[in-house]
Amino acid sequence: MYPIELFSVSKHTVKEAKMGAVIHCIACWEPYKSPFTFFPSFSTHRSHSSPLPPKLAMAPSEPLSLTPVQDSPLFDYPRLDQQLIHTIAYDALVWSSLHGLLVGDKSVQRSGSVPGVGLVHAPLALLPTPFPEKQWREANELAPIFNELVDRVSLDATFLQESLSRTKKADEFTSRLLDIHSKMLQINKKEEIRLGLHRSDYMLDEKTKSLLQIELNTISSSFAGLSNLVTELHRYILSRHGKLLGLDSKRIPANNAVNQYAEALAKAWSEYNNPRAVIMIVVQAEERNMYDQHFVSDVLREKYNITTIRKTLAEVDHEGEILPDGTLFVDGQAISVIYFRAGYTPIDYPSESEWSARILMEQSSAVKCPSISYHLVGTKKIQQELAKPGVLERFIENKEEIAKLRKCFTGLWSLDDSNIVRKAIERPELFVMKPQREGGGNNIYGDDVRKALLKLQKEGSLEDAAYILMQRIFPSNSAAILMRNGCWHKDRAISELGVFSTYLRNKDKVIMNKQSGYLMRTKISSSDEGGVAAGFAVLDSVYLT
Amino acid sequence: MYPIELFSVSKHTVKEAKMGAVIHCIACWEPYKSPFTFFPSFSTHRSHSSPLPPKLAMAPSEPLSLTPVQDSPLFDYPRLDQQLIHTIAYDALVWSSLHGLLVGDKSVQRSGSVPGVGLVHAPLALLPTPFPEKQWREANELAPIFNELVDRVSLDATFLQESLSRTKKADEFTSRLLDIHSKMLQINKKEEIRLGLHRSDYMLDEKTKSLLQIELNTISSSFAGLSNLVTELHRYILSRHGKLLGLDSKRIPANNAVNQYAEALAKAWSEYNNPRAVIMIVVQAEERNMYDQHFVSDVLREKYNITTIRKTLAEVDHEGEILPDGTLFVDGQAISVIYFRAGYTPIDYPSESEWSARILMEQSSAVKCPSISYHLVGTKKIQQELAKPGVLERFIENKEEIAKLRKCFTGLWSLDDSNIVRKAIERPELFVMKPQREGGGNNIYGDDVRKALLKLQKEGSLEDAAYILMQRIFPSNSAAILMRNGCWHKDRAISELGVFSTYLRNKDKVIMNKQSGYLMRTKISSSDEGGVAAGFAVLDSVYLT
Repeated sequence: MYPIELFSVSKHTVKEAKMGAVIHCIACWEPYKSPFTFFPSFSTHRSHSSPLPPKLAMAPSEPLSLTPVQDSPLFDYPRLDQQLIHTIAYDALVWSSLHGLLVGDKSVQRSGSVPGVGLVHAPLALLPTPFPEKQWREANELAPIFNELVDRVSLDATFLQESLSRTKKADEFTSRLLDIHSKMLQINKKEEIRLGLHRSDYMLDEKTKSLLQIELNTISSSFAGLSNLVTELHRYILSRHGKLLGLDSKRIPANNAVNQYAEALAKAWSEYNNPRAVIMIVVQAEERNMYDQHFVSDVLREKYNITTIRKTLAEVDHEGEILPDGTLFVDGQAISVIYFRAGYTPIDYPSESEWSARILMEQSSAVKCPSISYHLVGTKKIQQELAKPGVLERFIENKEEIAKLRKCFTGLWSLDDSNIVRKAIERPELFVMKPQREGGGNNIYGDDVRKALLKLQKEGSLEDAAYILMQRIFPSNSAAILMRNGCWHKDRAISELGVFSTYLRNKDKVIMNKQSGYLMRTKISSSDEGGVAAGFAVLDSVYLT
Repeated sequence: MYPIELFSVSKHTVKEAKMGAVIHCIACWEPYKSPFTFFPSFSTHRSHSSPLPPKLAMAPSEPLSLTPVQDSPLFDYPRLDQQLIHTIAYDALVWSSLHGLLVGDKSVQRSGSVPGVGLVHAPLALLPTPFPEKQWREANELAPIFNELVDRVSLDATFLQESLSRTKKADEFTSRLLDIHSKMLQINKKEEIRLGLHRSDYMLDEKTKSLLQIELNTISSSFAGLSNLVTELHRYILSRHGKLLGLDSKRIPANNAVNQYAEALAKAWSEYNNPRAVIMIVVQAEERNMYDQHFVSDVLREKYNITTIRKTLAEVDHEGEILPDGTLFVDGQAISVIYFRAGYTPIDYPSESEWSARILMEQSSAVKCPSISYHLVGTKKIQQELAKPGVLERFIENKEEIAKLRKCFTGLWSLDDSNIVRKAIERPELFVMKPQREGGGNNIYGDDVRKALLKLQKEGSLEDAAYILMQRIFPSNSAAILMRNGCWHKDRAISELGVFSTYLRNKDKVIMNKQSGYLMRTKISSSDEGGVAAGFAVLDSVYLT
């Protein structure tokens, strides 16, 4: 997944100021009176991974009783001296350049296809964001439990097919995935080596401070490479400026995501047991987040002497074949592990060629990360099903684990739940309507929820609607200094914690099952007057409080 | 010094093909029929560091009997399979991005002032260039001798002033430097701690295979940071693809330039003995080669815990002051060492402010790298004087060392040498006319040398002319694959070897005096039909043969 929409800021092209937010350019030291339209919206391919902060989408007539949080004096970043911020920002930009904390610049045409061209530092939080240690531990403890849950659910073909049967009608993409799943059932395809590189994303609820799961990514979990570097960068910044800031670099937890992802891939390669085989990364033709992926390949080569190749779905279709023994050959090379960094959105399948590639790979003996069943477990609908009473018990025996999982579940309901629909019409500010389909889409907030539900009710099409209802999360917010394209900007921001996890099983033997680093993403919790969301997300790390 | 003129290649903007040279873009795999005008001229601030290859500037009526060199089958890069080159090029681009082998992209406005913005891989030779081991050793052995020579010449104020007296008339810039030198003599300024970070540049003569010195840089020797990385890149490429290429990564000599430059700066800092003082890098306001400099600062901080600050000459003028004890304070910080990465060209002194800064620094007790006298020793005129019979003996006792130095001297003559002027009028193809002044300028080649000399003779202004004559070097050429802006291009190329050296003395104690890594630069040895040079230089490393 590639959630960051980059943009370009030309030095002296500043749009009309709407909000009076000040953006500082490292180059000219001139504060920019800039609107938030300066920063385009941040979106992930899963729309619900970026719920809108409450004050953005609130209809002015329906104020929520949100108490602004008082930051501890430590994290009162707004009080920081401009000169100090400037110095730290300069250091951060240099560090990012020397250490590869980079992405392709959207404004440069070839930056998504040619490495080394059109590079720009990754969008960054200048300083780490405070996060309570208790909830941090909870999130980490959940990682192996979710790993196990994904694996068990993936084995229950009936549960998957039945749960997704209605989604299948509403969403062509899920329907195609289910077809592949059915086909594999028909040919009795066995997946003995099962590799999961997941990332579970959470937000902290403002009032209760409880950890709420936003989504569980089972395909193409991104930023193992760069999040690692952001943590190193923040530790470096605090080692240099921590005394002045009153912050201790040791309070930033270690982040070894890239090595752990590489380790899991290497071990899967090893289980497959063909020394001549390579790992294939399935990629999008244009990928501005390519360096994140290259760092994983770099560790695979340097530490494990394993070659990776990069192929688009279309290339796999053209160059791939399966030998009688099940071995996948692409471009003349045997493939041991298929690591998907594409294929999670309908956009990745512009023609039948891409679907053929997906089926070809699924039929092969290569380890898939993920297999079609792991992919399906990550759908919103399955997340919703698992949250229903009694469902977790079908997969997990341990009562404590069930309690831990349930505690982080955000309310998710389908529109055939008339109680919830009634509640949502009464108190739309407590809900978000989300499209069923994968691959992102526009969420519905505020009074529009009421309107949409009433319309569907009137049409009698609630049950077949391609939407679900989700509990509206009111996330904690804190001060942040966000950097993008060489400029920095102080604002209130909300953060989302992603916990990477790795799981590897060969037949009955569980080889790996652990938390494997983290990703913190932070974005501005403001809006322009139009009420339209204007997020601007940056990579961040955690400062334990 | 910043010798690489970067340029931008838009994906589908290709100028009219003149030469039929094929440039391959990593992105679209389409060969570009491209002219050499695609690549702008490569120039250093010292014009004679890039003598034109002979076939470029030769008048068609005067062919030289150049025998094209046969490459050994090993380095017959043109025979390489396109697919293999593509793979290696891709690997090289990724490696460069992850490891900071980057420069600012000329086509991005803020790339010279804001780190982390508008980055592009440094121009590169895809594979190292063969260089004979014997001459490689010779070049390294010369390093400490040149270090010693610079130091001794710098102490001979009379020699410097007298040798440069005529240049002073012709060149305002040298004149200003000499004024500072005179002023320091008047106030009897002592430089007890003497730090030299030099780079001596050589080419191999085609016929004799002898090593000829092009210039000796005593100020702002660039690429200690990036040349280091290019060597690592080439070793990495050969470790991956060496078997296929028949090349052994161990034949690329180690290059530790960045650490040795940092070590010398750190030791000078230590000799200055003020633990609270910082090292100041004097920089140009716009510097697209900034990462080369940042790598040196990075080692100073990580390995020696020494802070560096970056200031332009104008900033030093505004923020600098000298305490009664001689300590230089800039922006409230005591400066132990001044490391010039600007100030070597008249362009760096647009107003009196910059000259004031230079004088201020020179008067302080800070260690200057270089001092005004070290700077003057690096002028072309001094290079020329040292080449005259008997002059080296004034500074060096050891006969062997004198012989070694003399062996690498290229013929340099002033225009008052009537014998040489006569020869040059007869055989202009054996000479280059170079402007006296520092900071670069247009060299005169071929029949234009004859015309210019005859004109000056007629005017009776030979002696006062702002030119010198230099022996025309006919450098060896070999096959190369040059990469720039994500594209690669095979061609014949010539190379220039720069040997870094470090020298540190405190009073009578020589603390460091050694060879300190190297820089290989390679450029196309072709021209367009117009006879105008079209160089395109890339960073390279040495493969010992």
